[in-house]
Amino acid sequence: MEQLGHKKWGFQGNQELNASSISVRGVLNQLMANRNKDDQRSTIPLGRADPTMFPSYRTTSSAADAVADAVQSFQFNCYPPTVGVADARRAVAEHISKDLPYQLSADDVYLTVGCTQAIEIVVSVLARPGANILLPRPGYPQYEARVRCSNLEARHFDLMPEKGWEVDLDSVEALVDENTVAMVIINPSNPCGNVFTYQHLKKIAETARKLGIFVISDEVYGHLAFGSNPFVPMGVFGSIVPVLTLGSLSKRWIVPGWRLGWIVTTDPNGIFQESGFVESLRSYLDITSDPPTVIQGALTQILEKTKEDFYSKILNIMREDANLLYEGIKEIPCLTCPHKPEGSMVVMVKLNLSLLEGVTDDVDFCMKLAKEESVIILPGITVGLKNWLRITFAIEHSSLEDALGRIKAFYYRHAKNK
Amino acid sequence: MEQLGHKKWGFQGNQELNASSISVRGVLNQLMANRNKDDQRSTIPLGRADPTMFPSYRTTSSAADAVADAVQSFQFNCYPPTVGVADARRAVAEHISKDLPYQLSADDVYLTVGCTQAIEIVVSVLARPGANILLPRPGYPQYEARVRCSNLEARHFDLMPEKGWEVDLDSVEALVDENTVAMVIINPSNPCGNVFTYQHLKKIAETARKLGIFVISDEVYGHLAFGSNPFVPMGVFGSIVPVLTLGSLSKRWIVPGWRLGWIVTTDPNGIFQESGFVESLRSYLDITSDPPTVIQGALTQILEKTKEDFYSKILNIMREDANLLYEGIKEIPCLTCPHKPEGSMVVMVKLNLSLLEGVTDDVDFCMKLAKEESVIILPGITVGLKNWLRITFAIEHSSLEDALGRIKAFYYRHAKNK
Ligand SMILES: Cc1ncc(COP(=O)(O)O)c(C=O)c1O
Ligand SMILES: Cc1ncc(COP(=O)(O)O)c(C=O)c1O
Repeated sequence: MEQLGHKKWGFQGNQELNASSISVRGVLNQLMANRNKDDQRSTIPLGRADPTMFPSYRTTSSAADAVADAVQSFQFNCYPPTVGVADARRAVAEHISKDLPYQLSADDVYLTVGCTQAIEIVVSVLARPGANILLPRPGYPQYEARVRCSNLEARHFDLMPEKGWEVDLDSVEALVDENTVAMVIINPSNPCGNVFTYQHLKKIAETARKLGIFVISDEVYGHLAFGSNPFVPMGVFGSIVPVLTLGSLSKRWIVPGWRLGWIVTTDPNGIFQESGFVESLRSYLDITSDPPTVIQGALTQILEKTKEDFYSKILNIMREDANLLYEGIKEIPCLTCPHKPEGSMVVMVKLNLSLLEGVTDDVDFCMKLAKEESVIILPGITVGLKNWLRITFAIEHSSLEDALGRIKAFYYRHAKNK
Repeated sequence: MEQLGHKKWGFQGNQELNASSISVRGVLNQLMANRNKDDQRSTIPLGRADPTMFPSYRTTSSAADAVADAVQSFQFNCYPPTVGVADARRAVAEHISKDLPYQLSADDVYLTVGCTQAIEIVVSVLARPGANILLPRPGYPQYEARVRCSNLEARHFDLMPEKGWEVDLDSVEALVDENTVAMVIINPSNPCGNVFTYQHLKKIAETARKLGIFVISDEVYGHLAFGSNPFVPMGVFGSIVPVLTLGSLSKRWIVPGWRLGWIVTTDPNGIFQESGFVESLRSYLDITSDPPTVIQGALTQILEKTKEDFYSKILNIMREDANLLYEGIKEIPCLTCPHKPEGSMVVMVKLNLSLLEGVTDDVDFCMKLAKEESVIILPGITVGLKNWLRITFAIEHSSLEDALGRIKAFYYRHAKNK
């Protein structure tokens, strides 16, 4: 065999990519790896919003049947149009229009590989050298990761725990300059678990309008609101400010493994069209991988035929689980939950380190908890708030009870002697 | 309503993205739009390699059943692991190892949203400022599009029509410098329709080794070889040079709408691991959207249970269609096919403009053909060769005959009077 050539294999790590190892998934993988293999108890996953393994959170059979039918029709084996299958786009437009004061058309809808790809696409299309985008803190780190891979700078505005996690609009105004392209909101909120009021959303819209920036409204948890604030889609204010609404089947229908999401231009004034945004979006869709045609083929059935019963059953279960978590947290001295969860599947909880012995920060807390109790919780730093925790309540009720018991035991084992 | 703020909506198009409007899909959309709406005949799509709508090219029912079963098991509604479901990875490793002199493990396999996303991922992970990558000309423009979106420069080596579209290895050597990270080959070839010999692949491997660059082998058309050259996976030479093998279910199983592909490290010396490439790849997978879990859940069944009969039936049909096209082209004076197709679903055909009146180039030819004959053919410029055409033969036999008749009629209508 010949000698190796004039240089060694020339791979050099990509800085931006390696920085992305602070992704939610990266951190969760580390926590999972830190468990004690000898612990006979089952691991309780409070780190990720994926309740599909729990019987209470099983999707409706009619949705599964719709996909099976689409596959067995042999009509959806083809590549889809780059923007999505026409009927499926129409179904999403109808579905979202129900809650809007105007009617969307199929042309307002672009189908994506889950909301994850919707984020990637929107960030990539908005990016240009020198531009910046406003992201919430705490937030969903996929935005930061995608911004790092693009020609964009992330600037963070605060969500205020003492005000039910509302947006600090003063900090938004202070961050904006002529290179700001958009601001992102997530409603119902991951990671905070709150649901914005109509009035607050209107204020956000008016602020964005004044500042001349688009609003990206991540509604992947749309309709998953079980507290006193009803879910109001940001598109309601689309005539005040152009809104890109992002969503997917993942959460409300509890099928993240189906990978079907959407970007919707909720913008009755047609500003996305006029400004060239739609054209750039379409160009980018030409070079991205599409969501599965077989799922697109089932979308009309899923959106039109899912029974109210299913939706309300899930909301009832989530309300109970959220309550259980909220009450349980009260009994663990080192944790405080500033705002009772009323939507999404997660909530932010503050960690009081001064009550603990030998626990240095949120990451250390989560690593030790994983090791000693086989309970997985996401350290707040991964979503932008150090020494907080993000906890999922959407798991089987009995497992959540079990987890609360283990966290409490962990606390008493590590409590500082006064 | 308030006044607009201190600036207009600040969207500015993204240059790299807009350049991507020379994507295959973008051009095909333009051709489709240029058809004559009054033509009563059906449109014949020779532009895209997607034969799913034709009865002869229907996938096997056992594959569809496997997906329907996976959906109805309710076991695959969850988010998949970022690298893919373990069983599905193992199935791909087994499947590919059958043709290799060594055994792959599940850990060598990363599942993707089709080969399209595999390209995106590999290009993104290899990118760094100043680096370059060698791409074939003619080629598959998705590579160019993804390189444009990344920190990478594309350099093109030639494929030689007079030598059965073999790689011009001298041009490869001339292009390489210390910043070259990899070279891409596509085998069986899109757009050329040839299949590389064992000897030629070995030479490519040795050249790449000498130059110290990785090989990316796009085998999305793997096993679709029906001529005299058998399909040899590049991974056979993985101990000479580290090879990233890209593939998917799209072509051999004729289900591009299922969006399931893979990146496989065919590298028995573990150089991808050692060099840090695998770590970067895993980090990037943490922030990309995954392929549908429900399809991953069906993968073992699909790869293990698809009958030899199905594969050989499809190859026989493709061989006949390729012959029909090759013979038909001979009867159209302005077209020459330098190499009889022996693999993939497409072939390159040279356009002799001097025999035509009022047709300025390949794009003009294709636009007029779409308008006058409702036949869609991809202009060669989109794959890197001006005044060539890329023609798909994988369509229903009768439609292909019909198309050849229409192209011939088009020729005679535009032939230059001598
Ligand atoms: C705020 C937010 N946006 C987007 C996503 C991605 O969702 P999908 O499963 O549709 O890709 C998630 C997933 O948890 C999320 O929490
Ligand atoms: C050479 C090549 N690579 C990759 C792809 C993408 O395939 P997939 O459908 O798996 O995304 C194609 C599709 O035609 C192709 O021709």
